[in-house]
Amino acid sequence: MDFKEIAKSAKKASFELANASEEIKNRVLSAAAKGLEQNSKMIFEANIKDLDAAKELVSTGEITPSVYKRLKLDENKLRDMIQGIRDLIKLPDPVNKTLLRRQLDKGIILEKISCPIGVLGIIFEARPDVIAQVSALAVKSGNAVILKGGKEAVNTNKILFDIIKKAASEVEGFLPDALQQIFTREDVSEMLKCDGLVDLIIPRGGNKLVQFIKSNTKIPVLGHADGVCHIFVDESADLEMAVKIIVDAKTQYPSACNSVETLIVHKDFPYAPALRDTLIDSGIDIVDNPQEWHHEYSDTTLSYLIVPDIDTAINHINTYGSGHTDAIITNDKQNADKFISLVDSAGVYHNVSTRFADGFRYGFGAEVGISTNKTHARGPVGLEGLTIYKYNIRGNGDIVSDYADGTKQFHHKDLEI
Amino acid sequence: MDFKEIAKSAKKASFELANASEEIKNRVLSAAAKGLEQNSKMIFEANIKDLDAAKELVSTGEITPSVYKRLKLDENKLRDMIQGIRDLIKLPDPVNKTLLRRQLDKGIILEKISCPIGVLGIIFEARPDVIAQVSALAVKSGNAVILKGGKEAVNTNKILFDIIKKAASEVEGFLPDALQQIFTREDVSEMLKCDGLVDLIIPRGGNKLVQFIKSNTKIPVLGHADGVCHIFVDESADLEMAVKIIVDAKTQYPSACNSVETLIVHKDFPYAPALRDTLIDSGIDIVDNPQEWHHEYSDTTLSYLIVPDIDTAINHINTYGSGHTDAIITNDKQNADKFISLVDSAGVYHNVSTRFADGFRYGFGAEVGISTNKTHARGPVGLEGLTIYKYNIRGNGDIVSDYADGTKQFHHKDLEI
Repeated sequence: MDFKEIAKSAKKASFELANASEEIKNRVLSAAAKGLEQNSKMIFEANIKDLDAAKELVSTGEITPSVYKRLKLDENKLRDMIQGIRDLIKLPDPVNKTLLRRQLDKGIILEKISCPIGVLGIIFEARPDVIAQVSALAVKSGNAVILKGGKEAVNTNKILFDIIKKAASEVEGFLPDALQQIFTREDVSEMLKCDGLVDLIIPRGGNKLVQFIKSNTKIPVLGHADGVCHIFVDESADLEMAVKIIVDAKTQYPSACNSVETLIVHKDFPYAPALRDTLIDSGIDIVDNPQEWHHEYSDTTLSYLIVPDIDTAINHINTYGSGHTDAIITNDKQNADKFISLVDSAGVYHNVSTRFADGFRYGFGAEVGISTNKTHARGPVGLEGLTIYKYNIRGNGDIVSDYADGTKQFHHKDLEI
Repeated sequence: MDFKEIAKSAKKASFELANASEEIKNRVLSAAAKGLEQNSKMIFEANIKDLDAAKELVSTGEITPSVYKRLKLDENKLRDMIQGIRDLIKLPDPVNKTLLRRQLDKGIILEKISCPIGVLGIIFEARPDVIAQVSALAVKSGNAVILKGGKEAVNTNKILFDIIKKAASEVEGFLPDALQQIFTREDVSEMLKCDGLVDLIIPRGGNKLVQFIKSNTKIPVLGHADGVCHIFVDESADLEMAVKIIVDAKTQYPSACNSVETLIVHKDFPYAPALRDTLIDSGIDIVDNPQEWHHEYSDTTLSYLIVPDIDTAINHINTYGSGHTDAIITNDKQNADKFISLVDSAGVYHNVSTRFADGFRYGFGAEVGISTNKTHARGPVGLEGLTIYKYNIRGNGDIVSDYADGTKQFHHKDLEI
C-alpha cells in the first residue's frame, strides 16, 4: 500500500481512538498481552531467524556485538515486555482530563481538556521490545501509531506487531488501522513528508538517525540525539559516595544514554588521586584530554576535567553537554541548589547516579523515550508526554463585538474542576 | 555583529534570566512601560517615517491597505501596548513552580519544576505592537528573545526595541543581552541554523512565511500557518443566534485568523434561505462552490456547504480545516458534545463566535500567538506556553545497580507540593 494511504487510514482511526473509553483501551492492552503470551513459540522462532542473519553481520563487522545482544529476545525479555503492557493497564487514562475550567463571563465557560496528539511515527533501531512498549503506550494514550523498526529485527518485529494487531482487532470498538507497521526506507521518507497526517515523529536511535530526521521533516520531532552526561565532584564531596555513584553511572550499563561520559572534579577536592585510582581499578578508562568534550563513548571510557570552581563546571556542562542528565556530588547544600538551578538539562541531580533518568524509575510506568527537547516534553516521556489538549467554549450566542465595543466586559473566574 | 555571536550572548543571558527573581522581572516590565510612556514623541516620529514609506508602496500595490493600517501606531495603540506590559506584571510568575514531587524510594526525591525554554526567535510581519508584547512575555517567562520584525516597520520597531532594552538595562540583575533585535534576511537564515542556541521559533505571519521556516530549520516551530475556521449550523439551531454569531465571526475583524471562512449548514435546518439572505444583507459574500475548501479569505467572503448530517460536517472540518477554531450552533446538547469531542482543533466551541480564540479573552493576559501545533502548546499561547520543566533528583549516594540486582525496590509515592 502507498504510504499516504497508510497515514490516512491511521489518521482516520486516530479520531475514533481519541474518543475510545478507558475500558476499550485497557481491553486492547489485555488482549495484546495475552496474544504475546500464547504465541511465544512463534516469536522465538522469528527471533532466531533474525539472530542467525545477524550472526553473519557480526562476523563481517557490519553490526556490533552490542546490537546483536539487544536483538536477542529471550524468555525474560518477553516476560518483561508482557508485564510492561499489563502495568500500563493499571495507570490512569491520561486523556479527557479537565486541566482548566474558567468562566470568561456569565454563561461563557472555557475548558481545557487533555487529548491525544493524533498519529505518532516511531522510528527505532534494533531492539524489538520497543514494538510492544510503544504500541501499548500509544493505545493507552489514544494515539494511532506507525512503527518502523530496524531491518536486523525484521522477522521479530513483524511477528510481534502482527500478534498485537490481531489481538487488538478482536476488541469491539477498536479500529485496527490505528496500529501500522512499515518496513522500507522509502516509506520512512514518505512519512517525513506527511505533515498534517503524522503529528509527531519519535526517533529512537543514534545521533545520525535523529539529525537526519530533523533535517528532513516539518513534523515535530521528539527525542534525544545523544546523551553526554556529566558528574561534577565538588570540593566537599564524599569520596566513597563519589566512587559508588560514578562506577554505577559509567559501568552499570555503559551503552545507555544516561551513562556518564565526563567526570568533572573540583581542583580542591582532596581525594582526587584516590578517586582516579579506584575508578581505574573498577575497569574505567580515564581520558584527560579528549579530542572532543561533546562525546558519547557508550563504553567504559570517561573524559576527565579539573575545574577551578563550580561556575566553570556548570558552564562546561551547558556548553558541551547534551541537556540530558547531569549530577553533582557534594555535601554543600548551597552548591547543590546552584547546580540544580543553573544546569540546563532535562535531569539535574544531587548525590544520585545519572542512571536514574528513566520512565520506569520515575514511576511513569513506561517511556516512549527520553527527550532533550526544550519544548513539549523533556526527560523520560510517558503517557502524559503523548497527550496535548484542546480548548472548548460553551455559550449561548455570545459574540466578540459586544466585548470589543464595550457593551460587555470579561469577568474571568476559575471554576472548580 | 555576526548572528552566531548574537545567539550566543542571548543564550548566555538566558541562563541568568532563567534564575532571575519575579521581582527583577517585574521591575524590567515596569521600566519598559515607563520608557515607552516617556518617549512617545520619538515613537510616533519613527512611525510616521514608516508610514510615509509605506504610503508609496500602497500606491504601487506592493503592500495592501490592511498592512498599512496595521503599521500605524496611534495614541490608543501605544496606550494599549503599555497597559499590556503592566497587566503582565500582575500575573503570577510561571517559572519555578513545582509540578510534581515524588519519592522514588526512601530518601530519593524527584521534583518536576517549571522553567523557561531558553532563547526564543520571533519572526513577525508588519505590526510593531508585537515588539512590546513579545518582549514583555519573554521577560516575564524568563526567556531571552531575538526579534525580527517586518521591514515596513523598521523605524518603529527599532525605536520601540531600543527604548525597552535601554529601560531594561537599567534594572540591576538583568542582563540586556537577553533582548536582541535583528534586521536582515541573512540573520534570519542564520538563526534557523542555530539549533542548540535558539530553542524555539515563533513565526507570526502568513502561511508562506510559516511553511518556509518549517522547511528550513531543525528548531521546533510554534504557530499557525493559517486559520480556516468553520461554523456548523445544525438542524436544531436558532436562526437569530446563528445570524448573530456568523456575522460576528465573519465581519467583526475579517482578517483575523479566528474569523470564520466556511459555513456548513445541515440540510434539514429549516431557516437556511433566511439565514443566507440575512448574511448577504450584512455584507457577506457567499461562495457555494469554492475552488478550494481549505481557503482563508481574510475578507468578508464565506464558503457555503450543505451537509446531510453532523458526521459529514465533522469529517469535512477535520479534512479541510486548519485545526484552529471551529464552532457548532445547535440546541441539541448531544450533538454539541459529539462535535466538541470529534473535531480535532485547538478550539472547539458551542454557540459562541470563533472570534473568542484569543489569549486576552481566555484570561491569559496576553499571547505570543495562536498555535495549531499538536505538540507543546495549542490554541492561544501565553506565559505558560513559554515554559518547559526540568526534573531534579536529590538523594544520598543512591545508585541504579541496587535496583537492577534486586537489593532495593522502588517505592513510588507522590508527596505534597
